[in-house]
Amino acid sequence: MSYPPKHHQENNINHMIDVIKTYPLATLISVTNNEPLITHLPLIYDDRKLIGHIDKFNPQAKLLKDEKEVSIVFSGPQCYISPSVYTTTQLPTWNYIKVHLRGKVTAIKDEQKVKQSLVNMAQFLEQPDHKYELKIDNPRMHGLINYIKGFEIEITDWEGKFKLSQDKKPHDIENAKAELIRANQESIMVFLEKIL
Amino acid sequence: MSYPPKHHQENNINHMIDVIKTYPLATLISVTNNEPLITHLPLIYDDRKLIGHIDKFNPQAKLLKDEKEVSIVFSGPQCYISPSVYTTTQLPTWNYIKVHLRGKVTAIKDEQKVKQSLVNMAQFLEQPDHKYELKIDNPRMHGLINYIKGFEIEITDWEGKFKLSQDKKPHDIENAKAELIRANQESIMVFLEKIL
Repeated sequence: MSYPPKHHQENNINHMIDVIKTYPLATLISVTNNEPLITHLPLIYDDRKLIGHIDKFNPQAKLLKDEKEVSIVFSGPQCYISPSVYTTTQLPTWNYIKVHLRGKVTAIKDEQKVKQSLVNMAQFLEQPDHKYELKIDNPRMHGLINYIKGFEIEITDWEGKFKLSQDKKPHDIENAKAELIRANQESIMVFLEKIL
Repeated sequence: MSYPPKHHQENNINHMIDVIKTYPLATLISVTNNEPLITHLPLIYDDRKLIGHIDKFNPQAKLLKDEKEVSIVFSGPQCYISPSVYTTTQLPTWNYIKVHLRGKVTAIKDEQKVKQSLVNMAQFLEQPDHKYELKIDNPRMHGLINYIKGFEIEITDWEGKFKLSQDKKPHDIENAKAELIRANQESIMVFLEKIL
């Protein structure tokens, strides 16, 4: 019995890039003295690299030194799959799309380059409507620049974990996909009312 | 300047429990020889403990030994906040809800207890409609039981990271909340068509 099951491993790098571009909020994990440091921040994909920015007071900032190895997780849609979703007899399971990457960090030290990478990031994230444009001479960005550090990560390892009922019959794969869409569209209002 | 900013730290444990119960898919992180092992699986909250099950062939299964320390991340809704969402001048940002936990793992060795924990998990996840009931004598579960390991995690540390524009004016906090709902309800169909 092999692990992970082959039918859940996605080997198409373009599909993994689609996940990264559609769901840019990454979980960045570095390890020091066997303790993980975990930070959530958007990373923008560009030609096998990821570009990001971090609060200089975040303990993770110290670790984002040249050549430091980090792990990165990107998370696509996910949901519980009730056996009632299928036409065949199954056990309960959870479907999800995750991309695991490993990479090496290099600091972006030039202030102008960091500003340009912020401008590029905003341009990417404002797609397709572009209701806002971050200008390179934005005075707030100029004020912020002393409190953040820019970095890029060269991706060295790719692993796509696409758990989407691929081992089931075609009709049940379709049903699981419909459930993923339904669950992810379901209102989050009740939840937010509870906690806000 | 302190890190993390206080207005983004959620200290209400009940709000963190709401996140865990609404978004049970956890990212479980353990570290061995300064390398992180990262696994995604649903965990069910019960009285300051989390209960889960793992494929016995997952390398993480070996590490889930008694008293092993692990980190756990639960992820609520998240989205890019364009400055165009606000009535005031702001820079682009990302809002998200995350719960970081630390805990100690204990294996559930008794087969009957593992089965009961699977029954309880299905019962919890089938709320509120209960379209499916996992019975304790389910023959498929009986077949599965030799291929999974049950465990519980005693939670030792809680950290709520609720980044929800709390430092902005009341009207802009409302706008950011509306954007979080809109972005999370937006169709994922186009994305799934691309990759499936």
